[in-house]
Amino acid sequence: MSFADLHHADLPLLLPNAWDVPSALALLDAGFEALGTTSFGVASSLGRPDGDRATRDANAELARQLAVLGCYVSIDIEDGYSDDADEVAAYAAGLPADGINLEDSSAGHLVAPELYAAKVTAIKRRRPDLFVNARIDTYWFRELATLEQTVERAERYVAAGADGVFVPRASDPELLRELTSRIPVPVNVLAIPRTSLLELAALGVRRVSTGSLPYRAAVQAAADVAVAVRDGRDVPRSAGYDELQARLVDYAQR
Amino acid sequence: MSFADLHHADLPLLLPNAWDVPSALALLDAGFEALGTTSFGVASSLGRPDGDRATRDANAELARQLAVLGCYVSIDIEDGYSDDADEVAAYAAGLPADGINLEDSSAGHLVAPELYAAKVTAIKRRRPDLFVNARIDTYWFRELATLEQTVERAERYVAAGADGVFVPRASDPELLRELTSRIPVPVNVLAIPRTSLLELAALGVRRVSTGSLPYRAAVQAAADVAVAVRDGRDVPRSAGYDELQARLVDYAQR
Repeated sequence: MSFADLHHADLPLLLPNAWDVPSALALLDAGFEALGTTSFGVASSLGRPDGDRATRDANAELARQLAVLGCYVSIDIEDGYSDDADEVAAYAAGLPADGINLEDSSAGHLVAPELYAAKVTAIKRRRPDLFVNARIDTYWFRELATLEQTVERAERYVAAGADGVFVPRASDPELLRELTSRIPVPVNVLAIPRTSLLELAALGVRRVSTGSLPYRAAVQAAADVAVAVRDGRDVPRSAGYDELQARLVDYAQR
Repeated sequence: MSFADLHHADLPLLLPNAWDVPSALALLDAGFEALGTTSFGVASSLGRPDGDRATRDANAELARQLAVLGCYVSIDIEDGYSDDADEVAAYAAGLPADGINLEDSSAGHLVAPELYAAKVTAIKRRRPDLFVNARIDTYWFRELATLEQTVERAERYVAAGADGVFVPRASDPELLRELTSRIPVPVNVLAIPRTSLLELAALGVRRVSTGSLPYRAAVQAAADVAVAVRDGRDVPRSAGYDELQARLVDYAQR
């Protein structure tokens, strides 16, 4: 089964998002067989804000680190770190990954759809097998985003070769139904609170990402457990030192 | 007040252990004013096992990243990454930090106390102001560790210039009472489940570390939240994207 095939199962493909080797190992141990990444988590770990093209090298390194895991991996490469389609394609094609997420905004603004489509075309020309998940940021940035502009972007990107379309922050059921019925490739959304994978499947969703949620939960948990120690409260169960160390020793031997 | 002064308050100094900028920012936001680090967390984030001297450069970089935060910082430098006292001293003295943790084991084995003491002496000669927390690994590695050998190591290290002594995995109240009454510098222990800071103060403990607990809680939380999404369960509250991003933008401007 290919990575693309996973987008056509009964339930949407749930891709949890790792940001480094140990988070990936923990997710695999929890039973996941395919991973996304979060460039926010990667940038944050470097002490850098999201979206400022700081993660180009770090995400390439992460792709190399995760490639030995033997699971499907899709790498979040922000906007490809360049406005030049060939530069983006050279970078993306060089990643030892099954797929990428590529977003149609740069530095907090939507880019012209034809510029974005050119990146997709250039990538697919170099690496036809790479699953290009086209992230459309209309709803990410704009409360007044419209269905029409989103579908129009999706159609352009699919014509350019995109294998899937990701619309983060689209969550209204009617909107999802419209998107999935009008977009001819698998539609990916962020996990929606109190909405099960089965419900999303009924709305036509083919892939669900956790986005930065696991990363944000991790940062929160670190502070929470320290506060619990300070305040004399019980701390929740967490993986032991020996267990995490054993995972890393095993990983280092691959 | 100096970092050393914090070891003489009514309650033990609780140092939560960060491994990167965002974990440090989260801990400061939670109200902590002094930070330790966890070399396990640093190594793990690099995809490397603990204790194999992989974090020399990464911990120096972490010290530089945390130095701009304006809080007290003590850096965990494993065994100093060398058996040569002068090399260790050159490394430690170059860290922009208020203190260090230096352990008396290398590659999983206790080192001869005189070799370790030479490292402490060399560091304090170069940087008299650096708070050297001497970590004694007798109980970390050996179930049959004795109070006598631990106190003997502590006395050597204090004579060599150590400012504090850290005995991880010492947790029995009687043992702690003996250690704190016989060791003439502040004694540091790992946080002990169901034992409050007030109780540890009564046992003479002057400093408490969370060790790798926040890091391990973070890794656990990442997997747990992904599983909760998969299973359709509610996910715990965690810091929002905008909040974390704002912290990083603020940090980048320092």
